[in-house]
Amino acid sequence: MDNTQKTSGMPIHKYRPYHEQFQVDLPDRTWPGKRITQAPRWCAVDLRDGNQALIDPMSPERKRVMFELLVKMGYKEIEVGFPSASQTDFDFVRQLIEGDLIPDDVTIQVLTQSREHLIERTYESIAGAKQAIVHLYNSTSILQRDVVFRTDKQGIIDIALEGARLCREYEKRIPETTVYYEYSPESYTGTELEFAVDICNQVLEIFEPTPERKVIINLPATVEMATPNVYADSIEWMSRRLAHRENVILSLHPHNDRGTAIAAAELGYMAGADRIEGCLFGNGERTGNVDIVALGINLLTQGIDPQIDFSDIDHVKRTAEYCNQLPVPERSPWAGDLVFTAFSGSHQDAIKKGFEALDARAAAAGVTVDEVEWAVPYLPIDPKDLGRSYEAVIRVNSQSGKGGVAYLLKTDHAIDLPRKLQIEFSGVVQAKTDAEGGEVSSDQIWSIFTDEYLPASIDDAKWGRFELLSTATQSHMTGDVALEVTLRDGDATVDATGHGNGPVAAFLEVLRAQGFDVTVYDYVEHALSAGGDAQAAAYVELQVDGERLWGVGIDGDISTASLKAIVSGVNRAIRTRQAAPAPELAAV
Amino acid sequence: MDNTQKTSGMPIHKYRPYHEQFQVDLPDRTWPGKRITQAPRWCAVDLRDGNQALIDPMSPERKRVMFELLVKMGYKEIEVGFPSASQTDFDFVRQLIEGDLIPDDVTIQVLTQSREHLIERTYESIAGAKQAIVHLYNSTSILQRDVVFRTDKQGIIDIALEGARLCREYEKRIPETTVYYEYSPESYTGTELEFAVDICNQVLEIFEPTPERKVIINLPATVEMATPNVYADSIEWMSRRLAHRENVILSLHPHNDRGTAIAAAELGYMAGADRIEGCLFGNGERTGNVDIVALGINLLTQGIDPQIDFSDIDHVKRTAEYCNQLPVPERSPWAGDLVFTAFSGSHQDAIKKGFEALDARAAAAGVTVDEVEWAVPYLPIDPKDLGRSYEAVIRVNSQSGKGGVAYLLKTDHAIDLPRKLQIEFSGVVQAKTDAEGGEVSSDQIWSIFTDEYLPASIDDAKWGRFELLSTATQSHMTGDVALEVTLRDGDATVDATGHGNGPVAAFLEVLRAQGFDVTVYDYVEHALSAGGDAQAAAYVELQVDGERLWGVGIDGDISTASLKAIVSGVNRAIRTRQAAPAPELAAV
Repeated sequence: MDNTQKTSGMPIHKYRPYHEQFQVDLPDRTWPGKRITQAPRWCAVDLRDGNQALIDPMSPERKRVMFELLVKMGYKEIEVGFPSASQTDFDFVRQLIEGDLIPDDVTIQVLTQSREHLIERTYESIAGAKQAIVHLYNSTSILQRDVVFRTDKQGIIDIALEGARLCREYEKRIPETTVYYEYSPESYTGTELEFAVDICNQVLEIFEPTPERKVIINLPATVEMATPNVYADSIEWMSRRLAHRENVILSLHPHNDRGTAIAAAELGYMAGADRIEGCLFGNGERTGNVDIVALGINLLTQGIDPQIDFSDIDHVKRTAEYCNQLPVPERSPWAGDLVFTAFSGSHQDAIKKGFEALDARAAAAGVTVDEVEWAVPYLPIDPKDLGRSYEAVIRVNSQSGKGGVAYLLKTDHAIDLPRKLQIEFSGVVQAKTDAEGGEVSSDQIWSIFTDEYLPASIDDAKWGRFELLSTATQSHMTGDVALEVTLRDGDATVDATGHGNGPVAAFLEVLRAQGFDVTVYDYVEHALSAGGDAQAAAYVELQVDGERLWGVGIDGDISTASLKAIVSGVNRAIRTRQAAPAPELAAV
Repeated sequence: MDNTQKTSGMPIHKYRPYHEQFQVDLPDRTWPGKRITQAPRWCAVDLRDGNQALIDPMSPERKRVMFELLVKMGYKEIEVGFPSASQTDFDFVRQLIEGDLIPDDVTIQVLTQSREHLIERTYESIAGAKQAIVHLYNSTSILQRDVVFRTDKQGIIDIALEGARLCREYEKRIPETTVYYEYSPESYTGTELEFAVDICNQVLEIFEPTPERKVIINLPATVEMATPNVYADSIEWMSRRLAHRENVILSLHPHNDRGTAIAAAELGYMAGADRIEGCLFGNGERTGNVDIVALGINLLTQGIDPQIDFSDIDHVKRTAEYCNQLPVPERSPWAGDLVFTAFSGSHQDAIKKGFEALDARAAAAGVTVDEVEWAVPYLPIDPKDLGRSYEAVIRVNSQSGKGGVAYLLKTDHAIDLPRKLQIEFSGVVQAKTDAEGGEVSSDQIWSIFTDEYLPASIDDAKWGRFELLSTATQSHMTGDVALEVTLRDGDATVDATGHGNGPVAAFLEVLRAQGFDVTVYDYVEHALSAGGDAQAAAYVELQVDGERLWGVGIDGDISTASLKAIVSGVNRAIRTRQAAPAPELAAV
């Protein structure tokens, strides 16, 4: 069985292997035999490194939302900006301090280049904070020395030491703030290790680490340039040689150019680091910073407390998507829309048996399922622990090769379901077709869809508890919309009024008055055809009294379609509640 | 500087560390000191493992497109399906064989469970092929033995050996086909190593590996359960103990549950593996299979020939997106829309100096830039080598904090640019504002946008060479549309007719007659407002005579808007050609 692979013609002559440029010699490395036993100190850099990498940087409002999310999740060190380089960042730091928005046990971190006017401005930005980390950096790589700074090693050391000295000077201007220090030899992975340890140790002499005031030495993989074991070797090498090691917090800052940032962080942590900087879901310049959600949940699967709350991962994801205006990919570890979805029949079967075995073990021990050790094939974590659910996607009419439920709805009815609704609906189809088996026709799918989500007008019986009979809105362009609705509620008719910044918000107020606590998590709409008389479809993901589900509305008026979608979701939630609790597999 | 992190309350009691369940004891491991020096044997499993993980599995047409892409890129072993489990897969394999679509140096691979009727069907599917790999698997993990198969180790071994024997029997029925074998102890990462090596070695005795007919032993991380060094340890452990090792091709099949599949593949390969199975851009069940694009280009950056052609990564990406109906994420290594984009001013400055130094080095050596070693800060690869370009994104009006070009166009003009067009346009803005610096107002942006993409009606001079004066279409519902257009061409007027499956295709034919080779790469449209009299905007990414760029059209008729967008792109291409070649930085 010969290997018939051929030369690609890719220009390999342009690239030199990492090991020919940088020696990381550590034959007596110990990290491959180490195990992670506790969470590192985390530092979330979403508001700085992450924000700098966005097409549209966060507005002050989005920044504030991100800060509050990070605090709520449990991050205690949060890099909030580069205040000397950006007025927005400066204003945001001032807002945090003057608005007293920083909890006592949270330390903000601010980045600054090693230049006097920037350092001065940095200290102005943090005045009044109880404590703050000033993160000083300058670039140390061979390449940057040569082409950007055009200076030798001593020139680069001088930049760092001068900056560190200025920090100690300006620190005196804000005696009410406890200032901690972090130093980063930026582009560390492109720097000779001997030089990296030399510059760090000289900076440490100026920052004077003590047990009460440790100093952070952060070794960034500004560009990821080699397999992650090489980064780990370099971290163990540095850890052995850093001065005042007992008073140094060795920090990692991996980027993901080669797609191995998570591994680099884990192996580097095993190699002796104490702290990891990264972003939620791996946002950040180019391929991003290391994904601190993946790192944290990886710990949880090993029975290690991540010291971060991931129990509502969808909320974390939606908030990050709101702030970053970038989607979290479908296959993002632990959080993507598809990561708890089983498509393969044999996987679904094994998972079903795993759930049954779990139930049996719990029953035999006389405890709840949440008290026994998790063990279900193909599900390395209990999705419930992250506020998610396991989803089995049925393959309808798979012999046609283009038989997905979503495909048929789109082709035959111009209905373009959002991905999570596709998954929810495939569970509905599965539940209704399990008895029969075999293929399901497009007509059957449409009938199941209308029966589940839309008022079935053919049916004499009223579909669901509520029905929208009429609406009227009034707005005086003040940002407030008044909505008057007439609702059928069972056999009664109800008139109600609500207010909000739009009809949807106003309608949620109406529903609250009817005793329903409804939150909108996602909202998608599209036209069903081109032209002026087009019908529009609206899809809303709701939380109704704690239950997450979708509703669908179709109408010529897009605004009415969204209200109908909310009614659809609320009616479905009521139906679910009235039915017996669905079994784990069918519930999706 | 105390660590103030607190207990999260996450249910760590449910999870047991991997090392408490599985012993991988290898204190004398050698892989951390090894280096990768050549490409592994690749096996692309997009058509099987990848396809099984799609919401809508590929149609026969999409499968064929994927197969042809993989062949064209240089993959020589391609898993084409699970023919015994799916009629579509069976038919597809038959189509490949009967249509003589498999090049002589390409070997197809088919997966089968170890059950007689499935094995029989598998051999039916490959009859007539010159050669094929039959990939036999059964699940071996402790968990699957307990809850799915409810049998002991011997029971699992019996399943594997019986399947292997049946393969050897059925092999005789198709003597004209050279059959190679692959065996996977599925859920290997949940299997005790002693048992894994035992079952593999017993299967090997039946498959009888020889130098001419080596056997593939594939060790899948069906679920990724530990840090990647543990997988590498296990591979080195197995490699030392596999029987007939010299005639065994040791293969890796990492999944990405923990986000470390790329690292697991690289470290496992260093640990002695010969072959890697994965999918383009990491498609696959849950978080996906290992990303073989990232693995291949990682090799290129080390001066190692990946033996795969990645020179038009956008084409590869679009084709994968077409087949999988899933987007490749913006930050996907080497391929995402944002990975060659620099947002930070200091990064842009360093990159600019890097390009200048490269030019200077090439000039000094009297060679072209493509002949000197690549070294540009923040760009670990020359984007040109992948058919991409470096993009510097200007920050407009950044002091407002919501100042992105895209944001302002959307807020003030309801123009919602696709991401790649956002990046292109930011380069246009940068080129026009570099001289002035400072903030750019929303009005200025709109004026630059209309000047660049839309006919500036205010201006007396005609905007661009072509202008759409009238259109008429005719269709007899036969799938063919006839388009009659009147075009202004400079100062002349031209009447022309084209045919196609729609007005766009017909218009491309018209342009071809005018001497322009235009391909549509991407197409997005949206309404500019709600209501029946809404204007629509169309955005098209074109390739015009080899140049890739965008065009924009706005019209009340969405069909006319798309034709206007094509005119806009073609006019822009003509303008670019007439202007001097733009410098690297402004060109985007």
